[in-house]
This record gives sequence, C-alpha cells and structure tokens, in this order.
Amino acid sequence: MSSISPTLIQSKGNLSDDRSNIIPFSSRLHGGRALALDVWSIYNAVNLPADCINLGQGYMNFPPPKWVTDAGDEALKSILPNHYSHPKGRIRLRNAIKNFYQNSFNRELDVETEIIVTSGANQGQYSVFTAFLEHGDEVIMFEPFFDQYLPSVTFNGGTPVYVPLHPHTDGPKPSSGDWKIDFDELRRSITPKAKMIIINTPHNPVGKVFTREELENIALLAEEFNLLVMADEVYDCLVFDGKEHVRFATLPGMWDRTVTVLSAGKAFAATGWRVGWLIGPPSIIGPTLAACTRIVFCSNSPLQEAAAAGLEQAAQRGFFENQVKEYQERRDVLISTFDQLGLKYSHPEGSYFVLLDISRVNFPKDYPFPPTIQGRGRDFKACWFIALEIGVSSIPVSEFYCDDHRGIGENFARFAFCKDVETLRQAGERLKGLAKYLV
Amino acid sequence: MSSISPTLIQSKGNLSDDRSNIIPFSSRLHGGRALALDVWSIYNAVNLPADCINLGQGYMNFPPPKWVTDAGDEALKSILPNHYSHPKGRIRLRNAIKNFYQNSFNRELDVETEIIVTSGANQGQYSVFTAFLEHGDEVIMFEPFFDQYLPSVTFNGGTPVYVPLHPHTDGPKPSSGDWKIDFDELRRSITPKAKMIIINTPHNPVGKVFTREELENIALLAEEFNLLVMADEVYDCLVFDGKEHVRFATLPGMWDRTVTVLSAGKAFAATGWRVGWLIGPPSIIGPTLAACTRIVFCSNSPLQEAAAAGLEQAAQRGFFENQVKEYQERRDVLISTFDQLGLKYSHPEGSYFVLLDISRVNFPKDYPFPPTIQGRGRDFKACWFIALEIGVSSIPVSEFYCDDHRGIGENFARFAFCKDVETLRQAGERLKGLAKYLV
Repeated sequence: MSSISPTLIQSKGNLSDDRSNIIPFSSRLHGGRALALDVWSIYNAVNLPADCINLGQGYMNFPPPKWVTDAGDEALKSILPNHYSHPKGRIRLRNAIKNFYQNSFNRELDVETEIIVTSGANQGQYSVFTAFLEHGDEVIMFEPFFDQYLPSVTFNGGTPVYVPLHPHTDGPKPSSGDWKIDFDELRRSITPKAKMIIINTPHNPVGKVFTREELENIALLAEEFNLLVMADEVYDCLVFDGKEHVRFATLPGMWDRTVTVLSAGKAFAATGWRVGWLIGPPSIIGPTLAACTRIVFCSNSPLQEAAAAGLEQAAQRGFFENQVKEYQERRDVLISTFDQLGLKYSHPEGSYFVLLDISRVNFPKDYPFPPTIQGRGRDFKACWFIALEIGVSSIPVSEFYCDDHRGIGENFARFAFCKDVETLRQAGERLKGLAKYLV
Repeated sequence: MSSISPTLIQSKGNLSDDRSNIIPFSSRLHGGRALALDVWSIYNAVNLPADCINLGQGYMNFPPPKWVTDAGDEALKSILPNHYSHPKGRIRLRNAIKNFYQNSFNRELDVETEIIVTSGANQGQYSVFTAFLEHGDEVIMFEPFFDQYLPSVTFNGGTPVYVPLHPHTDGPKPSSGDWKIDFDELRRSITPKAKMIIINTPHNPVGKVFTREELENIALLAEEFNLLVMADEVYDCLVFDGKEHVRFATLPGMWDRTVTVLSAGKAFAATGWRVGWLIGPPSIIGPTLAACTRIVFCSNSPLQEAAAAGLEQAAQRGFFENQVKEYQERRDVLISTFDQLGLKYSHPEGSYFVLLDISRVNFPKDYPFPPTIQGRGRDFKACWFIALEIGVSSIPVSEFYCDDHRGIGENFARFAFCKDVETLRQAGERLKGLAKYLV
C-alpha cells in the first residue's frame, strides 16, 4: 500500500522539467498595501544614518523596572512558569489584572470569563477581529489610526471605514484635544454593514485624551447602531496634566459591547515582552479566547509572571504616579525645543507622541530623496529631510490616513518622547538647527 | 461640529429600553467544533483528581537548562532585549538558527529572507495559513493530527482533507513506524482545490518518524499537484534508537515548496516561551512575514535571546545528544510498565508520546462517566476510567481524527513521557493496577 503507482512516477517525470508549476504559490497577501513599503521600512535604522536620533518608532531606550524584571528572572528559575500557560493567561496575572483594574471599571471582574491575556495588545486586537468579523463587515476607525488596525481588519475579512479627526489647530497654542470628531460625518459613515468601531484613547499618534462628552456621543451611536466597540486604551497610564482618562466601558450601557485593550509593554517599559490583556464581557471574551487559543495557543509564561508582579506592586511603589511624571518631563523637554523654534505642535494630553506642525519647514525641492519617498506626501519628504539634515527621525502622519484623507496628515510629523531625558535634550539641540529652514 | 444632532438623541431614546440589540454580537466562532468541549478541557487538572499524574498534556515537569535561562535573565537585565524585536526575529537568533540548521538543510540559509522567528511554532503555522489560504483551498493532513491544525486551517478559510495513517499494529511488537500511509488513498484525496499538505515528522501523537521512502513518495505528489508543504518538524531533536530524521525540505525539488516548522519550546524544555521559527524559501517566508507582522507584530525579545544562546552553545555542550538519551530513558521507563502488563503499544521512534492499545482495558459499562464524555468514543471512556481509577491521565486518540475516521483512533490512548523519570516510575507503579481490568 505504500508503493506509488507507475502512473504517478510517469506524471512526475513529465512534469519534472517544467518548473513553472512551483512558484509562486498564490499568497493572498501579495500586492496591495499589505506588502507595500510601509513607513517603518523607510524611516528605520537600516535606511537612516547610524547617528540619527530615532524619535520615530515608539520604543523606549530605558529598561523596565528592576523589581519587575527580577520577577521574570525568578520565573525563569522555576519550572512551571517556563511551560504552557492556560490560554486565558496565568491565573496569577489574571488575578493581578482583576485587582488592579476593577475599580477603574466600576465593577468586579471575573478572572475566568472577563479577562484574557494576549501576546501583546496587537495580537489581542487581531483575535477580536478574527472572532467577530464576517466577510464585508465594516469597522469604523478614526484617522490618524494606529497602522496595524487596517491590515488586522482586512486580513480577517473586514472593511475599514475611515473617519478623520479634524485638526482645529489654528490657534496660537493648539492642544491634542483640538483634534475633533465631526459627529455628523461619523454618523454618515455608519452603514448597515457596520459591525465595530475602534476608539483609541489616549490616542496614538495625536496624543489626544477623548473627553467624556465625546465618548458619550460615540456611545450613543454605538448603542443606536449596535456596534461592538474596541477601546484601545494601551496608553491609559500616560495621561498628563491631571486630565481625566475615561474608560469607554464605564459609560452607561457600554460594558456589554466593549472590549478594552491594555498592554504590559506600555505600562512597564517592556514593548518586547508581548504581553497584553483584554477586559470585557463574556460574550466578547469567550469567542476571542477561542481565536487566541488557535492563533497563539497561549502567551509566554515567564513574562506574564513579571507583568503580574508589576501590577501587584505598582500601587505600593507609587510606580505609575512616578512614571507619568517622568514622561511629562520627557514631553516637556521635547516641546520646549519646538517652543524655542516657534514651531506649532499639538500639545499632548496623553500617550508618548507629539505631532509637530511641519508646514513651515522649507526643504529644497531638489533634495535627493530616495525612490521610496518619491510620490509620497509632503510630510514624507519633510521627515526624511529632517532626519538627514538635522539627525532626528520622526514619522510622517499621512501614513495613518486613507488615500482620500492623506492631505489632513501631511502637515504633521510624529515625534516619540519615550526616550530618556538626555537623548531628548540631544535631539532638541539638533532640532534647533531647523531654524534656518523655517519660513 | 462635535455636538450631536437632536435626531440622534431621539433615536437613542427610542432604543434605550430595548436591550435586545446588544447581545449577542455574531461571533463567527460560535457553534461548531471551535467552541465544542475539546479534549484538553476534559482531561485537565480542573476536572481530574488533584493527585492524578498528568501524562495527558505534553509539557515537561522539568526546567530548561540553566545556561539557557541565564541568557534570558541577562536579556532582562539589558535595555534593547526588553523592547520590540524586528518582526523577522532578533538578528542574534536568526544568525544562531542559520548556523545551527543550515547543514541539516544542505544549503546556506539567508537570515533576511529564509528564516522568521514566530511566537511559538503554532503561531508560525497559523501565519502560513493566513498568508496562503484562499477560501475553499484544501489542506491535506494525516490523521491522527495535531489538533491545532484543524481550526488554524478553517479560521483562515481553508478546508481540511483528512487522510488517515493506518495502524498495522497486529504483530507482537508493533512500532510507531507501523502506522502507514495508503498512497492510493492519499492520491485520491487530492482534488483540484488542494493547496497544501501538512507533514508532521516525528509525529504527534503516533511517535512515527517518516521514512525517506515515504517522504519521497509524498514529495512526488507534492510536485505533481503543485502543493505547498508544511513540514512540522518540531520534534526533530527527539529521534530515538539511531533512526534517521529526514528533513522534507532536503528532498529533491522540495526546498522551493516547503516551509519547515521548528520550536524552541520542544528543543529546550520551554513550552511556555512561545518562541519558534520557520525556515523556507523567500516565496513562502515573505508573505508569512507579512502575516506574522500583523498578527503579533513580533515575538517576545528576552526569550529570543535565550533561545539564541541555546542554539549557539548546544553543540559544544553536547546538549541535544544528551537530551535525546534522557528522553529515551523516560520512554523506556514508561513502556517497561506496558511490557510488564503485556499491553501492546506503538514503540515510539520519535517525539515524546506513546500510543497505548487500550482495546484490552475492560471498564464497567455503568461506570459514572461525566456528561462531557457520554456519546464520545470508547477511548474517551477508557482514558477517563484510567485517570479516575488508576490515577494517571492520558488523552483519547479519536480526538485527533475526523468524524468519519474516529473508529481508527478509538483503540488508543496517548501517554506523554516528557516528565522526569521519578514521575514516570510512579505512574508506572500505578498503571500496574490496570492488570485486574484487562481482558
């Protein structure tokens, strides 16, 4: 029975000189935006000068707290925390999440049905889309959007619907809060195919912390149109100047339709740990767990233990209060440079990003831009020019808009201030060199 | 512009008493096998007696080597290895993979285009399906199959096609190698919709190491029908008694159509690290990278560093040679009990599983089986009975077959021997209690 038929050998012989049947296998990701050169592939360490200060990508240049990494080391020295975790997440971490967050959700959280640990917030989001999107379901996202939303939606059969935040930043001291939703425009964007809406507060890249009134108005629409809400609140621990962070899930009636996305990487300066968590009702967490279990089976165990220690001890150590002060100082160091240059920016209420208005940066039209940037928006050119001439990299904001709305983002560059103060001071010194290019 | 229209408020008011529009959101995972009670949810620590020795699930009860976890600790004490890795994987690990594996692939491996680090082998597999499967594409898998294959294929729009391995285990000393492919049956299963075939060698749960002849015959079919091949070789470091492990990708013409799946968890007794890797041609790795980047963005950084240290130092330490001896001893401790009982089993050539023939285990028909087991195969009942009465848990093998072929698996229970020798001895002592239930 394990012999092959002569016919088969013959067929194989007939085909053996014809290599055309081998490559390519059709990949459904070929072509389209998924494989287009994204912004991260342009403005990175490979393409930019080695001594360029990278304020483009949002990763820290400082370590997680030692008392958190020590817990990771302890886990590595044990037996069970090196092996499979429950797909829901390690019970120690789920208990820590429950205890840390439930007051902020105004409810007791059930560790078995309302919390799931994911392999980073990103994989958590992806799994929600996997669990809930049917082909053609529409997902509303505000622009500028975290760039992973788009492919995560389309890979799972969904159709993105873009609603821009409009910068009302004409005043002398604009704030990230001046990026506003046009609620009539939002309402018009909701079709019978709408299934979900994504809210990101504090917002990457704008730095906006949505007001209670804005969120309540979104909540009304979510209820009217029966939308599932993804509340991406991974920057919830980075809100400045006493501004209130409103959890969308705490608004009247919203718990039942909202999944909140959170991240150990953002909370504990550990973006490479790939530990995040979702909090929501069993009707959302249950199917998402089924998706997570198939996609990753479980998340890495030792760093779940470390994240648990972080949440367990944060309050007594005053960790988050102190961290937000440190970030506020980092922000202020960076924006003081912009102030000195007289450049306008959207003063960030939260997150670790600031949008600089680059409309006054006047670069030579005949500057030798690489082919990857030719044909892209003005902000792509400005960011490239600033990186090469000034030595500080940033990210062009038009990347986070659909083609129809790119013009809104073209006046802005995103600078990340999740760097130590000394690096930000050095970047500031360099950025002062922009003065001679301003009009 | 941020005010809401009176119409909207009114609509909301009209709907506010009607909660019927909230739940459930349609989840595409609801119903069907994805949410059915799987075998892991039945035979686990929650449902079984606390003192039951767990030889069901395949995780080790011993730690990774200290020199490997030390490298993880070192990474945790650094800065960059706590932050985002490149989606391809950390360059140190990709270099270690290249150097460790390229001889076994008979070719120089390119770290930029032919290697990708994944968040466990499971997520690597899932991402290949995401990258390549179009709705309705068929994926051929041999039964019994690693249970994650099925939902990973269907979640990505694929259709599984099942081809059973047939146990020719009637002889007095059957081997895992006696589970055979009927190549006529395999050929008949390949329709014009066939896109991929999954080969798992060494095989979970059979313990079979496919022979070169078997793999060559599969290769002929892969070429004739232009199939993409997923070679799941995560147990490649666990091959016993000098048996040859043949990498499918090294067979003539197969490199171009094969992606090989490997796992740090299996290699270094670290199933909870969620670090695996894929090796294949750029035409497969490229689209898979695009999928991975969206699904998880990157894999966790500190444990990539640890895995790199493992691969870098394994040869000089004689690690894998020693480890395979340890596993062979574990296997022999377990099967010696079966020998003493006169029970037949498929002598494992590789992996850390052994299939016990349970057809002679005679449990009372009126045993109080829980509802989750009622209506399932005879093996479900035998495994439950053995766990409750003998105190050793195992996994019923019919779970790894489609409905039409379940009868083939019903005579077998899977025991995992990835446990320390003392635990296996204790399990053996208990299992001797089966004697009085044998017919």
